[in-house]
Amino acid sequence: MEPRVTLITLGVSDLTRARTFYERLGWRGQEAEETVFFQGPGHAIVLWSRAKLADDGALHDDGADAFGGVALAHNVASREEVDRIVEDVIDAGGEVTKPPAETFYGGYAAYFRDPDGHVWEVAHNPSFTLHADGTLTLPDFGAR
Amino acid sequence: MEPRVTLITLGVSDLTRARTFYERLGWRGQEAEETVFFQGPGHAIVLWSRAKLADDGALHDDGADAFGGVALAHNVASREEVDRIVEDVIDAGGEVTKPPAETFYGGYAAYFRDPDGHVWEVAHNPSFTLHADGTLTLPDFGAR
Repeated sequence: MEPRVTLITLGVSDLTRARTFYERLGWRGQEAEETVFFQGPGHAIVLWSRAKLADDGALHDDGADAFGGVALAHNVASREEVDRIVEDVIDAGGEVTKPPAETFYGGYAAYFRDPDGHVWEVAHNPSFTLHADGTLTLPDFGAR
Repeated sequence: MEPRVTLITLGVSDLTRARTFYERLGWRGQEAEETVFFQGPGHAIVLWSRAKLADDGALHDDGADAFGGVALAHNVASREEVDRIVEDVIDAGGEVTKPPAETFYGGYAAYFRDPDGHVWEVAHNPSFTLHADGTLTLPDFGAR
């Protein structure tokens, strides 16, 4: 297995509500088989019924939208871009759990939850290389 | 905000256990500041203390490793590759929740949970374009 993710599927309770939230952020999806697909650079983000996802994976689900221990980061090129996106998130009805602030690693970041509780971090981290196409390359940490 | 994920952070209760699991699958990480980073094609997968992640994002966390409504897909080029990876996952101590099987969309897939309950799907989907570098392009669904 290689270290890579090709699709990130977010289980949602109301597909229209979830799609509307992300489209208000400027995304444009394609819907097929009651699933909404958004193409990213080299991967895709998918909205699908949480109940169907749990059933598909034979996963026990208590249906809560509690923190699931996963955060999706959206790295951007500047602090101003963090601020601007957070304003868009608020306008779209997202819940900002942590407003933009300095981070311990010398960056600037905020966190929000989408309407189903999925957690995003919007971050500017000057030590990571963000390419023009939106992809990211880690530094050599000089670590083991 | 663009439709893209740059980092996928998986909150873990035991960093060494989590790192060992993924390294037994063949991944090679770098550790810095009690965080393990794996470089993927254009994005990175990060292992970090679940408690620290929740604290960083000002997120309420009941600490459960229940299904969080997110599935990370690892698309591969053949059915045989799905089978092979699932064998590796079992050897590494992962919990296969759904053994490899035909899917409703004409593909072949399995699901597993990592030691912290994070859900992965290993899938061969002939209708998605999987590039040599491991990135994925969605088809035009001809949909709205």
